Amino acid sequence: MHASPNISLRKGLPELIQTYRDFVESQLFPIDLQVVNGPFRSFLPQLNELRKKAKLNNLFNPHLSEKEGGLGLNLLEFAYISEVLGQSPIGHYIFNCHAPDIGNMELLSHFGSDSQKVNFLHPLQKGEIRSCFAMTEPENAGSNPVNLSTSAILEGNDYVINGRKWFTTGADGARFTIVMAVTNPEATSPYERASMIIVPLDTPGFKLLRNIPVMGESGEDYLSHGEILFENCQVPKENLIGTEGMGFKLAQERLGPGRIHHCMRWIGICERAFDLMCRRAAHRMLSPQKPLSEKQSIQNWIAESRAEINASRLMVLDTAKNVQIHGAKAVKEEISTIKFFVANVLTKVIDRAIQVHGALGLTDDTLLSFWYRHERGARIYDGPDEVHKAALSRSILKKYQS
Amino acid sequence: MHASPNISLRKGLPELIQTYRDFVESQLFPIDLQVVNGPFRSFLPQLNELRKKAKLNNLFNPHLSEKEGGLGLNLLEFAYISEVLGQSPIGHYIFNCHAPDIGNMELLSHFGSDSQKVNFLHPLQKGEIRSCFAMTEPENAGSNPVNLSTSAILEGNDYVINGRKWFTTGADGARFTIVMAVTNPEATSPYERASMIIVPLDTPGFKLLRNIPVMGESGEDYLSHGEILFENCQVPKENLIGTEGMGFKLAQERLGPGRIHHCMRWIGICERAFDLMCRRAAHRMLSPQKPLSEKQSIQNWIAESRAEINASRLMVLDTAKNVQIHGAKAVKEEISTIKFFVANVLTKVIDRAIQVHGALGLTDDTLLSFWYRHERGARIYDGPDEVHKAALSRSILKKYQS
Amino acid sequence: MHASPNISLRKGLPELIQTYRDFVESQLFPIDLQVVNGPFRSFLPQLNELRKKAKLNNLFNPHLSEKEGGLGLNLLEFAYISEVLGQSPIGHYIFNCHAPDIGNMELLSHFGSDSQKVNFLHPLQKGEIRSCFAMTEPENAGSNPVNLSTSAILEGNDYVINGRKWFTTGADGARFTIVMAVTNPEATSPYERASMIIVPLDTPGFKLLRNIPVMGESGEDYLSHGEILFENCQVPKENLIGTEGMGFKLAQERLGPGRIHHCMRWIGICERAFDLMCRRAAHRMLSPQKPLSEKQSIQNWIAESRAEINASRLMVLDTAKNVQIHGAKAVKEEISTIKFFVANVLTKVIDRAIQVHGALGLTDDTLLSFWYRHERGARIYDGPDEVHKAALSRSILKKYQS
Amino acid sequence: MHASPNISLRKGLPELIQTYRDFVESQLFPIDLQVVNGPFRSFLPQLNELRKKAKLNNLFNPHLSEKEGGLGLNLLEFAYISEVLGQSPIGHYIFNCHAPDIGNMELLSHFGSDSQKVNFLHPLQKGEIRSCFAMTEPENAGSNPVNLSTSAILEGNDYVINGRKWFTTGADGARFTIVMAVTNPEATSPYERASMIIVPLDTPGFKLLRNIPVMGESGEDYLSHGEILFENCQVPKENLIGTEGMGFKLAQERLGPGRIHHCMRWIGICERAFDLMCRRAAHRMLSPQKPLSEKQSIQNWIAESRAEINASRLMVLDTAKNVQIHGAKAVKEEISTIKFFVANVLTKVIDRAIQVHGALGLTDDTLLSFWYRHERGARIYDGPDEVHKAALSRSILKKYQS
Repeated sequence: MHASPNISLRKGLPELIQTYRDFVESQLFPIDLQVVNGPFRSFLPQLNELRKKAKLNNLFNPHLSEKEGGLGLNLLEFAYISEVLGQSPIGHYIFNCHAPDIGNMELLSHFGSDSQKVNFLHPLQKGEIRSCFAMTEPENAGSNPVNLSTSAILEGNDYVINGRKWFTTGADGARFTIVMAVTNPEATSPYERASMIIVPLDTPGFKLLRNIPVMGESGEDYLSHGEILFENCQVPKENLIGTEGMGFKLAQERLGPGRIHHCMRWIGICERAFDLMCRRAAHRMLSPQKPLSEKQSIQNWIAESRAEINASRLMVLDTAKNVQIHGAKAVKEEISTIKFFVANVLTKVIDRAIQVHGALGLTDDTLLSFWYRHERGARIYDGPDEVHKAALSRSILKKYQS
Repeated sequence: MHASPNISLRKGLPELIQTYRDFVESQLFPIDLQVVNGPFRSFLPQLNELRKKAKLNNLFNPHLSEKEGGLGLNLLEFAYISEVLGQSPIGHYIFNCHAPDIGNMELLSHFGSDSQKVNFLHPLQKGEIRSCFAMTEPENAGSNPVNLSTSAILEGNDYVINGRKWFTTGADGARFTIVMAVTNPEATSPYERASMIIVPLDTPGFKLLRNIPVMGESGEDYLSHGEILFENCQVPKENLIGTEGMGFKLAQERLGPGRIHHCMRWIGICERAFDLMCRRAAHRMLSPQKPLSEKQSIQNWIAESRAEINASRLMVLDTAKNVQIHGAKAVKEEISTIKFFVANVLTKVIDRAIQVHGALGLTDDTLLSFWYRHERGARIYDGPDEVHKAALSRSILKKYQS
Repeated sequence: MHASPNISLRKGLPELIQTYRDFVESQLFPIDLQVVNGPFRSFLPQLNELRKKAKLNNLFNPHLSEKEGGLGLNLLEFAYISEVLGQSPIGHYIFNCHAPDIGNMELLSHFGSDSQKVNFLHPLQKGEIRSCFAMTEPENAGSNPVNLSTSAILEGNDYVINGRKWFTTGADGARFTIVMAVTNPEATSPYERASMIIVPLDTPGFKLLRNIPVMGESGEDYLSHGEILFENCQVPKENLIGTEGMGFKLAQERLGPGRIHHCMRWIGICERAFDLMCRRAAHRMLSPQKPLSEKQSIQNWIAESRAEINASRLMVLDTAKNVQIHGAKAVKEEISTIKFFVANVLTKVIDRAIQVHGALGLTDDTLLSFWYRHERGARIYDGPDEVHKAALSRSILKKYQS
Repeated sequence: MHASPNISLRKGLPELIQTYRDFVESQLFPIDLQVVNGPFRSFLPQLNELRKKAKLNNLFNPHLSEKEGGLGLNLLEFAYISEVLGQSPIGHYIFNCHAPDIGNMELLSHFGSDSQKVNFLHPLQKGEIRSCFAMTEPENAGSNPVNLSTSAILEGNDYVINGRKWFTTGADGARFTIVMAVTNPEATSPYERASMIIVPLDTPGFKLLRNIPVMGESGEDYLSHGEILFENCQVPKENLIGTEGMGFKLAQERLGPGRIHHCMRWIGICERAFDLMCRRAAHRMLSPQKPLSEKQSIQNWIAESRAEINASRLMVLDTAKNVQIHGAKAVKEEISTIKFFVANVLTKVIDRAIQVHGALGLTDDTLLSFWYRHERGARIYDGPDEVHKAALSRSILKKYQS
C-alpha cells in the first residue's frame, strides 16, 4: 500500500451534506417509523409531497449528472450524501436514488438505446415511475450466476420470455422490469448466454404471483419483494439492452456500484442505530442516579460500534474514491471487501442497539426492529459473505502462484 | 466438581419420548409453518382437535402430577419431552405446557388457595382457558425488579389496581392474568413490597391496549404480547396469592423453573433449525454434482452447531437433574448459566441456518424467519444475558472474598 | 437424542478424587511454576521423589488395570481424576499417565507381543523409562495421514528405516520411540501402507536433531519436542507392532482415546486458569475500595468461562461414558466434537485470565504464560479444528443423503 | 461526519516508502528471525552496521526534523514509513525510531532543558545510546494512573528516589531512564502529584533487578523488560523535566502519539503475517494437486484479515492526519479507537497465520511465534482494551447528557 492520490471534493460539499441532513432530520425522521410500519401505500401522497419538495430544493437525483437533472456528484461525493439518506429508511426513495431504480437508471443511461431512454429512463429520472430488476430465480443458487432457467426466445420481432424469478424488489407497483434471461443457450462461454430485456409490467404473460412474505411481512409497493412469472411474455426485440449475450457483462457493471450503494446506505443505518443506542443508554435509568450507560458491557458495545462504523466509512469512501480514479473493475477486491465487512458491522450494530433497548428493542416502536428484519438479507443479497470472501481470497492468492 | 449422583429415569421414558416425537412430527410439522404465519385464530379449531387428540392419547399435561391429570414426569424427564415439543412452535401449546400458563399452573398449584385452584387452576389444567402474567412495565428497567409502578391498594375487601404493564404474553384471549403490584410500599426491604394478585380479564378497569407489534407482527391470541392497563381495576382480596409482600418470593419460584423451560424449548428449536440447515446443505445444488454441503464454511457451521447444541442439552439436563435433587434455589448459578448460554447458541444456530438457506431463509416459507424474529427476545426476556452473567459472576466471586 | 443409559461409578470415587486433589494441591502447586520455568532436568530428582510418593500412596498409574499395577479405573472414572491432574502442568507426569507414554502403554498393552511387553511396556508401566511417538513429518501435511515419506524396508530379519519426523514429544531422554513408517508402498488402499515399529533410541542411525524451539523455548527431556532423523536405522523385525500395514488402524486406536485424554487435561487447565482469574479479580484493587471484579467486562469473562468450562466437562464425561459403553469407534463424532470444542474453550479461558492479570499475565510469574504458549497447539495437534469440523460435518451429512 | 480536509503529502513520498521497503526487505528480512531468536547481544555488531548504513542512506531518524538530523516527515508521512519498518521486528530499531526511545526523544525535544538536550537527547538522536521509561509499578493497577508509590523527595539540590517499577522496556543496556515519581503528594489534584525525572542508570541506588521473563523469555538489551529498583537513588534537581507536578501532563503528551506509533507498527506486523499466511496457503500441498488455499476456512481467514488490515490502516492514517491538523488532544477519541481496534486485528491475524502454518506455526522457525508471544501485550500495554473502550464510550456519551 502506498500513499494514494487524492481526489478533490467539490467546494461546498460540507454545506450540501448539511442541507441533506437538515431535510432528512426535519422532514423524514418524524414520519419514517410510521411509514415502514405501513401500510406503505397509505403514505404515498405524503411521500410524493416530500419528493416534490426535494425537487424544489434541487436535492432530487443527487446521483445524476446535471444534464440529466441531477446534482452531478461524483461517486465519492455521493457516498457522503448517501450515508445521510441512509439514516432514514425512506431517504433514498425521497431523493429518487433508491435501489433498484438507481441501478436501472445507470444501466439505461450507459447502455440504453435512444428510444429506451425516452420511454423508460426519463420517466424514472423524473421520478414519475418505478421499475424493478428480475435476476434471482428460486430454483437456482444465486451464488453461481451461470444457473439461469428463464429463457427469451426470439420469434419474429419479439422475444418470448418464460421463467420464474423472485426477490424482484419493488415489483408491486413498478412500471417495468429489466429481466435477465437466456437468449443464447449454445454460447461457448456460460457467461455469454444471457441478455437483459426490458419488460413493461402490463405485458400479457407477466404475472406478479405474490409479494413474498419476508421476515413476517409481505409489504407492498416499494417495500416489497415480488415472486413473478413470465409465461410466453412477448416484448419487441427493441427492448433488448445492448446486444445479445451481454447480460452478465451488464450485470457486473450494475452490481459493482450497486454493492457500494448498499454499503453507503448501511453506514447511514449504523449511525442512526448507534444514535438510538447512545440515547437509550444515556437516558434509561437503572435507578434514580444510575443510567444504563454506566454498565461496562454497554460501554463496550458503544466503543466497538464506533470503531467498526468508522472503519466501515473509511473503507467505503476509499473504495468510492478508487472507483472514481481506476474504474469499478480495477477495484473488484475492494468492493467485495466492503460488501461483507460492512454487512457484518451492520448486523452487529443493530443487534447491540436492540439489546440496549431491552424489550422495547423488540417492538415496532423503534426502527431497530425494521432494520433487524429487513437487513438480515445484507449478508445474503448481491452475493453472500462467503462468496465475496472466496472471491477476494482467490484474487489475492493469484499473486502467490508461480 | 465431584462425581455427581444420578437420578434414575423411569422405565419406558425412551418409548414415551418416541411417542411424543411421532405425534409432533406426524401431526404438527405438516401445519406449524402455516399456523405461525397466521392468522392464528383461524387455526384454533384445528389446534383444539389436536389438543383433544393429545388428551385421548394421554399425552396432555406432561408436566403435571398424575393426580392433577398429568403424566407425573419429574423435571429431568420433562426436559427430554420438552425438547421434542420445542421442535414445533405449537408443540407446547398442543400439550398444554406452554408459557406463561405452565408457570401460572405451578404457582397456583403450590401457593393457590382452594378456591383459586377451583376457579383458576383447574380450568387451566384441563386446557379450557388460557391465562397471562403481568410483570414487566414499559417505564421501568426489568433488570431491576424493585422498579415497579403498578399499585394495588386494599380498599375494604377489594384491591384497587392501577398501572400499566407490557409484554404480557398471550393477554389477547386469556381468561385471567396474575399481576405483580406494589401492596406494601412502606416495607423496609424493597423485595417485600409487591404481591401477586389474580385479575379476571373481564374485570372493569382492565384494558388490553394493544397487541404490541413485535418484530413486525402484532399477532393475536396465544401468539401475542399485550400492553395492558389497570385503571381502578377492583378485585376481591381473596385473589391475592399467598400473603402480602410475597410477590418477589413467588416471582423467584416462578422464574427459576421458567428459565429452564425456555432452555429446554430452545434446544428443540435448535434441533429443528439444525435439521433444516443440514437438509438444505445436502440437497441444494451449486452445480449438478456439487451440493452446498461441500463448502467448508457450511461444514464449519454444522459442526459448530452440533457441538453447541450438544453442550446446551447436557447442561440443561444436568441443571434439571440438580434442581430435582437440590431444589431450584441451590442451583441458581446453573440456571443463570444455561439461560444465557443456550440463548446465545439458539441465536447462532438460527442465524447459520438462515445463511445456509440464502434468500429462501429470509422468507416465511421456512420456520427460520419466525424463530429469527420471535426468539431475538431470548437474550432479553426473563433477564438479559448481561444480568445473568453479572449474577453468576458475583455468586462465584463471593467464594474468593475473605 | 434419547435418554441414555447410565454407567455406575465405583463407590469411593469422590473420595479418590479428593485424595488426588489434595496431593496435587499440596505437593505440586507449590513447585509446578518453577518446574516449567525450568530447566526441567534440574527438577528431575525432586519429581522422582514425588513419583515415588505417588506409588507409595497407590496413586500411580490411575489409568492401568489393577493387574498391571494401576487403579483399574474405567475411562469415565479416569476422566474425573485426569481433570484434577491437569490442573498442574506436571500432574500427569507425576502419576505416570502423561502423553505420549499413556498412549504407547495402551497400544503395547493391546497389540504388543509378549517380548515387546516385557522389554518396553513393563518398564513404562513401572515409570522407569519414558518413550515417544514419531508420526508427524515436517514435509507432509498432517491432516492427510496418507502423506508419509518415512520408509521401513525389510532386509533379512531387520527393518531399515529412513525418514525425518518432528514434534516427537519427549524424544529427548526417551528410551524408545514408536515410529510410523511405510512398509507396503504398493498396497491398494493408502490406509494399508504403513506400520508401527519400535525403535530403541540408542539404535545406530537414529538421531535427535534438535529439540524444536516451540513458542520461544526448546525445552528439554519430557518438556521438549524433537526433530529426529532415521538414517538406515536398523531394528529387528520383531519390533513390528501387530502386522504389516496395520499402522493406520493402530493410529486410530491410539488417537481416539488420546484426544479424550487431552480434553480431560484441558479442563483441568481451564479450572486452574479460572481460579487464577477469579483470585486476581477479587484481590487486585483499582482503588482502595474497588476490586477489579467490579468491572462488568471481567464479570462477563468469569461467567462465560464458567459456562464454557461446565459445557466442556459435561461433554467430555458424556463422551468418556459412551466410549465405555459403545467403544471409541462408535463415538468418533463425539470425539471430534470435544476435540475442537474444548480446545477453543481452553484458548478463550487462558486468554481472558491473562487479560485480567494485565502485565503480570504476560510474565512467567504465573502459569498462564506457560499455557498460553504450550497450548496454542491444542487447536492444531492431533488434528486441527478444521479437520475435526469437516469430519464431524461429513459424518452428520451422510444421514441426509439419499 | 463531514468531508474532512486533506493534508498534502510531500512529493516523493511513494519513492521514499519504496526505498525503505527495499532496505527492509533486502537487509532485514534475511536476518530478523535469527536476531529475535537471539541472543540479541550477539547480533549487536551486525545491527550497528545496518544502523550505519541507514545513516549513510539518509534514512536514519525518519521521525525527526531535518534540523535534528532527521527526514522531517510529518506524522501522516511517518505513518506510511512506520508500517514498512514494522514488517520486521528490528525495523524501528535500525532506523532509530523504536519505543521507548522515540517517545523519550519527543519528550526531551519539547520539554527538555538545554543541558538535558545536550546530555541526553542528542546522543539518543545520534543513536549512540539507548534509554528507557519507568512508569508502571508492579503493585499498582496501571489503568488508574493516580496509583503511584515511587517517590522523589527533594533534599538540598537532589531528588532522592525510592520505589519499584517494572516493564521498563529495554532497561538492560540503557544509559538513562525517565522515571515517573511522586514529588508533590499533597497536591489537591491527584493529577498534579507526580513528576518526570531523568536518572542515569549508573547512579548509585539504581538497580536492574531482573529482565522479567515474559512469555517464556527474559531477553536482553533492547529486547527485554526490566524490573528495577530505586533505593535512595540521588540525582541533581536539574534532571527534572519541565516543572514539578507536570508528570501526568507529560505522560499524556508522550502516550498519545506513542499509541499511534504502536498502531502503525502493528499494521506492519499484520502485513508480514498476512504475507506468510498467503504464501503458506498457496504453497503447502494437501495432495499433489491441491494447495491448502483451496480450503474455504483458509480463504475466509485471508479475506477477513485483508478487510481488517485495510480498515486498520485507513483508521490509523486518518487519525495521524487529524493529529496533524487538530493536535493529539482533540483526537483522543480516535486514538483510543485505533488502540483497541488495531490491537485486536493484530491478535486475530497472527492467530490465523499460525493456524494456517499448523505445527510449523508453533515453532520458532517463523516470526509468527515471536509475535504471538511479544504482542499478546498489545491488548494490555499503554492501556488495556477495556480502559480505552470505557474512555471512548464516556466521551461519546457526554454528548447525550443534558
